[in-house]
Amino acid sequence: MLLVMDQKATQEQIDRVIATVKEHGLTPRPIPGGQRVSIGILNNKGPVDGSLFLGLPGVKDAIPVTRPYKLVSREVHPEDTLIPIGDITVGSGTLTMIAGPCAIESEEQALTIARHVKQAGADLFRGGAFKPRTSPYSFQGLGKQGLEILAHVREETGLSVVTEVLDYENFDLVEKYADVIQIGTRNMQNFTLLRRAGLSVKPILLKRGMAATIDEWLMAAEYILSEGNDKVILCERGVRTFVNHSRNTLDLSAVPVVKNESHLPIIVDPSHAAGRRDQVIPLSRAAVAVEAHGLMVEVHHAPEKALSDGGQSLYPEQFEGLCRQARSIYNNLHAVTE
Amino acid sequence: MLLVMDQKATQEQIDRVIATVKEHGLTPRPIPGGQRVSIGILNNKGPVDGSLFLGLPGVKDAIPVTRPYKLVSREVHPEDTLIPIGDITVGSGTLTMIAGPCAIESEEQALTIARHVKQAGADLFRGGAFKPRTSPYSFQGLGKQGLEILAHVREETGLSVVTEVLDYENFDLVEKYADVIQIGTRNMQNFTLLRRAGLSVKPILLKRGMAATIDEWLMAAEYILSEGNDKVILCERGVRTFVNHSRNTLDLSAVPVVKNESHLPIIVDPSHAAGRRDQVIPLSRAAVAVEAHGLMVEVHHAPEKALSDGGQSLYPEQFEGLCRQARSIYNNLHAVTE
Amino acid sequence: MLLVMDQKATQEQIDRVIATVKEHGLTPRPIPGGQRVSIGILNNKGPVDGSLFLGLPGVKDAIPVTRPYKLVSREVHPEDTLIPIGDITVGSGTLTMIAGPCAIESEEQALTIARHVKQAGADLFRGGAFKPRTSPYSFQGLGKQGLEILAHVREETGLSVVTEVLDYENFDLVEKYADVIQIGTRNMQNFTLLRRAGLSVKPILLKRGMAATIDEWLMAAEYILSEGNDKVILCERGVRTFVNHSRNTLDLSAVPVVKNESHLPIIVDPSHAAGRRDQVIPLSRAAVAVEAHGLMVEVHHAPEKALSDGGQSLYPEQFEGLCRQARSIYNNLHAVTE
Amino acid sequence: MLLVMDQKATQEQIDRVIATVKEHGLTPRPIPGGQRVSIGILNNKGPVDGSLFLGLPGVKDAIPVTRPYKLVSREVHPEDTLIPIGDITVGSGTLTMIAGPCAIESEEQALTIARHVKQAGADLFRGGAFKPRTSPYSFQGLGKQGLEILAHVREETGLSVVTEVLDYENFDLVEKYADVIQIGTRNMQNFTLLRRAGLSVKPILLKRGMAATIDEWLMAAEYILSEGNDKVILCERGVRTFVNHSRNTLDLSAVPVVKNESHLPIIVDPSHAAGRRDQVIPLSRAAVAVEAHGLMVEVHHAPEKALSDGGQSLYPEQFEGLCRQARSIYNNLHAVTE
Repeated sequence: MLLVMDQKATQEQIDRVIATVKEHGLTPRPIPGGQRVSIGILNNKGPVDGSLFLGLPGVKDAIPVTRPYKLVSREVHPEDTLIPIGDITVGSGTLTMIAGPCAIESEEQALTIARHVKQAGADLFRGGAFKPRTSPYSFQGLGKQGLEILAHVREETGLSVVTEVLDYENFDLVEKYADVIQIGTRNMQNFTLLRRAGLSVKPILLKRGMAATIDEWLMAAEYILSEGNDKVILCERGVRTFVNHSRNTLDLSAVPVVKNESHLPIIVDPSHAAGRRDQVIPLSRAAVAVEAHGLMVEVHHAPEKALSDGGQSLYPEQFEGLCRQARSIYNNLHAVTE
Repeated sequence: MLLVMDQKATQEQIDRVIATVKEHGLTPRPIPGGQRVSIGILNNKGPVDGSLFLGLPGVKDAIPVTRPYKLVSREVHPEDTLIPIGDITVGSGTLTMIAGPCAIESEEQALTIARHVKQAGADLFRGGAFKPRTSPYSFQGLGKQGLEILAHVREETGLSVVTEVLDYENFDLVEKYADVIQIGTRNMQNFTLLRRAGLSVKPILLKRGMAATIDEWLMAAEYILSEGNDKVILCERGVRTFVNHSRNTLDLSAVPVVKNESHLPIIVDPSHAAGRRDQVIPLSRAAVAVEAHGLMVEVHHAPEKALSDGGQSLYPEQFEGLCRQARSIYNNLHAVTE
Repeated sequence: MLLVMDQKATQEQIDRVIATVKEHGLTPRPIPGGQRVSIGILNNKGPVDGSLFLGLPGVKDAIPVTRPYKLVSREVHPEDTLIPIGDITVGSGTLTMIAGPCAIESEEQALTIARHVKQAGADLFRGGAFKPRTSPYSFQGLGKQGLEILAHVREETGLSVVTEVLDYENFDLVEKYADVIQIGTRNMQNFTLLRRAGLSVKPILLKRGMAATIDEWLMAAEYILSEGNDKVILCERGVRTFVNHSRNTLDLSAVPVVKNESHLPIIVDPSHAAGRRDQVIPLSRAAVAVEAHGLMVEVHHAPEKALSDGGQSLYPEQFEGLCRQARSIYNNLHAVTE
Repeated sequence: MLLVMDQKATQEQIDRVIATVKEHGLTPRPIPGGQRVSIGILNNKGPVDGSLFLGLPGVKDAIPVTRPYKLVSREVHPEDTLIPIGDITVGSGTLTMIAGPCAIESEEQALTIARHVKQAGADLFRGGAFKPRTSPYSFQGLGKQGLEILAHVREETGLSVVTEVLDYENFDLVEKYADVIQIGTRNMQNFTLLRRAGLSVKPILLKRGMAATIDEWLMAAEYILSEGNDKVILCERGVRTFVNHSRNTLDLSAVPVVKNESHLPIIVDPSHAAGRRDQVIPLSRAAVAVEAHGLMVEVHHAPEKALSDGGQSLYPEQFEGLCRQARSIYNNLHAVTE
């Protein structure tokens, strides 16, 4: 944190700021400049709340300098984290393809789609049993029955399954069935849920909040790691902007930034960012090209009959084509890089 | 919902869209235009998911036409909702002033501030016992002890108290102590929490999500009303934009829009929008000038010692000045209007 | 500018950064911290381009510390700038009401509206002769004929007139007729136009760009002042955000921030921010409540026949009511403040 | 345009809206629904201004249905536009690489970089002679001398050159020297400049405005085409959002959307979107993966000595690596697709 003083700040005001920094157990370091004094705050052990100083007389600005996260930081943990799930590993050196319907609608639907995506080359099956819906009157998912279908899909196909948990209440239940537990964009700062996830032995797929900065996202992951679970997969899924030709704006620069700041793997969900099938395939390829560790894509064998998100779900043959393209870009990139 | 077809959509494609609309139990109405056909969807009983049609061949766009909410809608319930809390009423015809610290830090702190704000003219006391914090290492509130202090403040001062609930687990506890239960910006789409709030007999103060449209916000309120609790107070608290001179951008046009669309009362929290004390007072006056039903403002007797949000908390004498200005604008506006 | 080094930056990397700072004629000051070194850049005479250093090995971040503007800055020029226009003065201590149609459509239209707004209490008349339109096929304004009508309105009513200039080519022409020359939101960074405005003797009304930060806006004003014209009136008119219930989001916190940072007067245009009549009046009152120096509002005697922006134009009687409310809030605020 | 009436709109209000639509020379088509009437507006020859109707009693919403552009639209002109520049062609079937420094600083600098990028495989050389700068005190480019250097670079290397024009005044001059004339993000709605560009015989590279929707961007291109010049290359360069880890947020979904809506070629500039060298390479690859028709990238042989944008400029060897990766992804994609 750097506190910038007004040009006309008095020595008395400067002294008061210095004293206040010390009162909070922090180390102030005054930096006289050409036109004004700044005061660095050193040796802080966690995030410093700038608002503690912003209101003091003579303080013009409080500028964060260092990042607030620790356990998720690459500075603290330089090696890439690799997360084994069944036979596969998510993280550096592989491209993980996760595919399936938005919601589990029936055993037949789930199995049909799972067989399609497995054949096309998916590594994991996704499908929602508990669905977060903007409207209380929309289909909310099959709940426990959906989880049982997922278990059956795993048995039949051998694919590990990813499914979302919406709340603390159902965490034990979801944990029992899922191979990877997803925390959705609306719950990225549901701190009770994050702490519970931190006590799980299962890997957590943590989606970025719709309007979250990378700092906030990594701090959400820090909640999970701070409770002991370091198997966190981050998932970029688009942020809310003024842009109105896609549902959200996929922020692909997040991938290199997160890979630089953190050791955790990061995948991309282009389906929810786009909200329209015709944007999903190009954005998927783009996510591979920025070297995301994986993709999560919605696939449905009959999208026009889907109970949710039909318009953004790929047809099985589209997903097959996408897998070919994605793996080709991935392999090519690695061949070229080396 | 209006489905806009491509100029070159074939009759076969149009027929397939019409059939799909019917399959979903909805009524299609083709509208031939000069250059293209559109298809209106009529008699829908709730929100229609545009993505169901977006992917069909020949469909260019799916444009929502009617609002998705019902119980919160002024079209359904034309009269203003008034919410009695102790001696006061929130809603049309009064200006409700809610004030207090960000977090309850101690009994002495809470009582000191409560006496100050009561004297200045506050109607309700606010203070957090459970605090949502970006960092797991920051002060998380006093929890149950904080609630007990709030109860003591109520006894001592006669002020009803507003406090935040973070999760389903602690809802019963918070409900026992609070006069108004706040659901914060990060939990606006925590649907489990919303449903639980819908079963409460206490009024709910529902903050707008940091990146929520008004439709999404009203749909969150719809969750609460749909479970039976119609005592919902909406609270605008700023949205996330590119603007970097305030923590969030206070969207004051939300007040007339919400008052037009819904019968629920709406108040404004300028403290969290601004994040800086020097913006809080002008934005508070502005909120009164757009005819919000009330204000919620952070006040601290010693902001530079506050454990959170010190820089945006008003000094008691500032709050006193604000109350005078706010009531003056309010009265004046009503005198002028009549 | 503060350059933050990686925790693991080597002494060699630090030395290279220090040398590069010096090569650019700037003064580096290394600041050893607990975990990493930062390097302050002192005595810079203008904005420092952070990208000069961002790419150097070992540099993690380049954080701007001081503001880039000079002539517009209150630190350089502490007293409020007052701008006389005919009989009135824009700036501290008065509320300036500017009103009129979006576009001048005919002499009859302009005169009718001007008489209405004068009677209601407007200080200045606005009306576009050259209109920036998103579509090349839309009405582009009457051009020179529009300017002549404005001159006639001034003669008939005694009101000074504000009108927009779109380009360098027509600057001389607009300058000849206008009392205040408006530079619109799309031209806020048309630097050629800004420089030309800097050579004018007429006051310039500089609207904020639709996605401009306050720094960028004040730097645009700096272009005008740096050429010699210090009669600049800033005008907040809403910024582009994800919010879709108003055309733009009026950023009222800009008013206190600009008044703190700069000595230039700042007014608010709620008509373009809202884009809908029913939001214009409450937002106008809010702008007065944050102590803007004035309002610019669109008024039309027959909005449904207007050639542009009819839906956001007030009826004359609405404007009259607004003037009463605005002056009442303004006077009251000043009475209460004193 | 679809006008949605209030549920309680009277027949009189509906009739007045219908009459107003007709007064504007448009064709109204009432569409009775289950709960409310909507009124479609048909046979409009250009964009309809919704604000004409928004203020009428009983009108709840005015929803645009069809796109406002014509000449740029693929519905009007189904075949891809191909733009020949010297030996190369921009548009479908090729990947155009444009590279060079932000600003031309000297003949030696320009030639050194041009030779590097040519060897690496660039198709066109870019470099600014007139630079739009936020601050009036920053380096503004070499002007005419810069153009002469560009001409010399073309002679020496055979590379065609792209350079920016800032205003109408210098258009003739820039047009004389440039092979492709760039209109920058701040000038996207400088309509005088767009019209002048429409009279040029040279191809125009039109960057997207920092906060422009695709509709606004295509309408800006429509200005150019409507004057007779149909050689427009669109360039996505990032939009302004709340995201703070990159200078702007690259909106790659714009590529498939523009390719679907328009016949004009679209390229991507990742340098200005990112603002940081370490994001430029992954975002460049992503742009190729969404099938942009080309890339425009900043390259400098000594970025730390550059007079502007040094931190986002690639080193020549990085650009060489990027060219290899980009062409490899491109070829691979086309091989896989076919």
